[in-house]
Amino acid sequence: MIGSARAYSNIAFIKYWGNRDDTLRLALNGSISMNLAGLETITTVEFSSDLEQDQLSINGSDQSEGALARVSAHLDHFRRRAAIDLRASVRSTNNFPAGTGVASSASAFAALAVAADSALELHMSEKELSMYARLGSGSACRSIPAGFVEWYAGPDDASSFAESLAPPEHWNLVDLVAIVSREHKAVGSTGGHKVAPTSPLQGARVADAQRRIDWCREALLRRDFNALAEVIELDALMMHAVMMTSKPTLLYWTPATLGLIEAVRQWREKDGLPVAFTIDAGPNVHVITEASFAEEIAEGLRALPTVQEVLSGRPGGAATAIDTHLRAS
Amino acid sequence: MIGSARAYSNIAFIKYWGNRDDTLRLALNGSISMNLAGLETITTVEFSSDLEQDQLSINGSDQSEGALARVSAHLDHFRRRAAIDLRASVRSTNNFPAGTGVASSASAFAALAVAADSALELHMSEKELSMYARLGSGSACRSIPAGFVEWYAGPDDASSFAESLAPPEHWNLVDLVAIVSREHKAVGSTGGHKVAPTSPLQGARVADAQRRIDWCREALLRRDFNALAEVIELDALMMHAVMMTSKPTLLYWTPATLGLIEAVRQWREKDGLPVAFTIDAGPNVHVITEASFAEEIAEGLRALPTVQEVLSGRPGGAATAIDTHLRAS
Repeated sequence: MIGSARAYSNIAFIKYWGNRDDTLRLALNGSISMNLAGLETITTVEFSSDLEQDQLSINGSDQSEGALARVSAHLDHFRRRAAIDLRASVRSTNNFPAGTGVASSASAFAALAVAADSALELHMSEKELSMYARLGSGSACRSIPAGFVEWYAGPDDASSFAESLAPPEHWNLVDLVAIVSREHKAVGSTGGHKVAPTSPLQGARVADAQRRIDWCREALLRRDFNALAEVIELDALMMHAVMMTSKPTLLYWTPATLGLIEAVRQWREKDGLPVAFTIDAGPNVHVITEASFAEEIAEGLRALPTVQEVLSGRPGGAATAIDTHLRAS
Repeated sequence: MIGSARAYSNIAFIKYWGNRDDTLRLALNGSISMNLAGLETITTVEFSSDLEQDQLSINGSDQSEGALARVSAHLDHFRRRAAIDLRASVRSTNNFPAGTGVASSASAFAALAVAADSALELHMSEKELSMYARLGSGSACRSIPAGFVEWYAGPDDASSFAESLAPPEHWNLVDLVAIVSREHKAVGSTGGHKVAPTSPLQGARVADAQRRIDWCREALLRRDFNALAEVIELDALMMHAVMMTSKPTLLYWTPATLGLIEAVRQWREKDGLPVAFTIDAGPNVHVITEASFAEEIAEGLRALPTVQEVLSGRPGGAATAIDTHLRAS
């Protein structure tokens, strides 16, 4: 009873921030993202009667407490579905550095879901895998389908899942992640979602979300970079507006973040380059561009003294089961 | 027919952003401010049959076009009220540098209103002067009454004026204006107010305004610095949230602005100092503290490499007519 899977991280163009149900991770608003080939998690799950408790290693390092408890709780959903009570050993590796603002929970829980499904031979549909991945980490549901993905914010468990809008080859976008800080966040996403309702602006952000989703989906399907740039920057700024007006206030930006926003806007507005920013719950800036401009933009980013490193992700495929012999050690 | 007046600039603790009527400058939400003694405008108005058109000098430099037209339009209100048709010469001096993010329009139009009232011997009430000042620049209505001031966002001309909540001696606060840029704003306040409705967050900001006004008024009257700090930072962040999500987007912050926000929060949260920030339509940061800490905080600000200069304002009195022999030249 062993299975392995690979899943890609994803970058949200329309952000998920705030739940109608924190336990089921039912998002208040729909979201849209692009899977990031090149930024991946490979996970192997082995259920065994020899184990007395679940075990978890991440990048070769044994985990306990918080991380292990969250994975155990996620495996419980699969054990219930399969009607088994076996403990499991989970080995997971990310090919991107930790604490860089690239959400490892999305790729991790997507890979875990597919690996567990494979190990238990549940043959879940993509929709079911997306629902199950969501229970581990909301944004993980978007790492299940391929390419450009929409997560429908349905009101209950069965209606809150993600589907592909277009395959990876639809549009050769690149996400250049400009790393300006490796510090761990003071408040992580799970905690952040819980304080979202304390912002006087969250209601307006959610009420306006369907307009932004429609705008973003249209821009993606028509490959209209300017429209995409406008909506993803607006959406990111609206999420950070909510964050910084929450109680406690969550101000993830640093001076370097502002400098990158200025640089990206200057490249687009003065130099006419197809480039836009989005920012997750951290100070690092995701710089979205088209593949033919990626090298030039990456050079420009590396030339900024505040940028420590630039990671790169192309549109990625679906989370998939892989041969366990290829698994992470 | 000559009159002179002095008026102080003011710093808003609860911000004015967006009008229900742009011509009458009827604010969508009420606001609260502190007059800034030390940052003042002195203006002399002389109506004369010898003049063929209005004349305006600011800091000794003759003005034409935009600035002159705005002053002429303001004088028209006084000419209508006095039933005269004389042109006027207006000489105005500010004792603070231009383009530093200290709003000169507030003190300028408050001083102009009081000087015109004096020249024409209209003997307007404080309430009327506040209404008339508002027609020139919204925030000018708050520079008419003394000390700590509330501008009621009434629905029409007669109900949109400011009154004193407490005299200057009520609380020895200091506004340390940390100047990080002297560049002129790409979009000034008058233009900014007009784009405020394009932000999907403006409605929520306005809908929540009365709560913040009540909170701020209470904090001021009880001299509760922590409550004041919390509400003025929230309110400033909510205004900038609206600005940065407007179309066109107005992102007034620079990396230096973010650095100052971080410094102020660290001084308050880690070092326990009574200090809070607020930010107007520009990159400079107003650092509010109590007088006994002002020297220490000002030193801390000057030690930051991004801070070019620190201006200082104590609670100021009402706009008042002054002897014309003391007038600006």
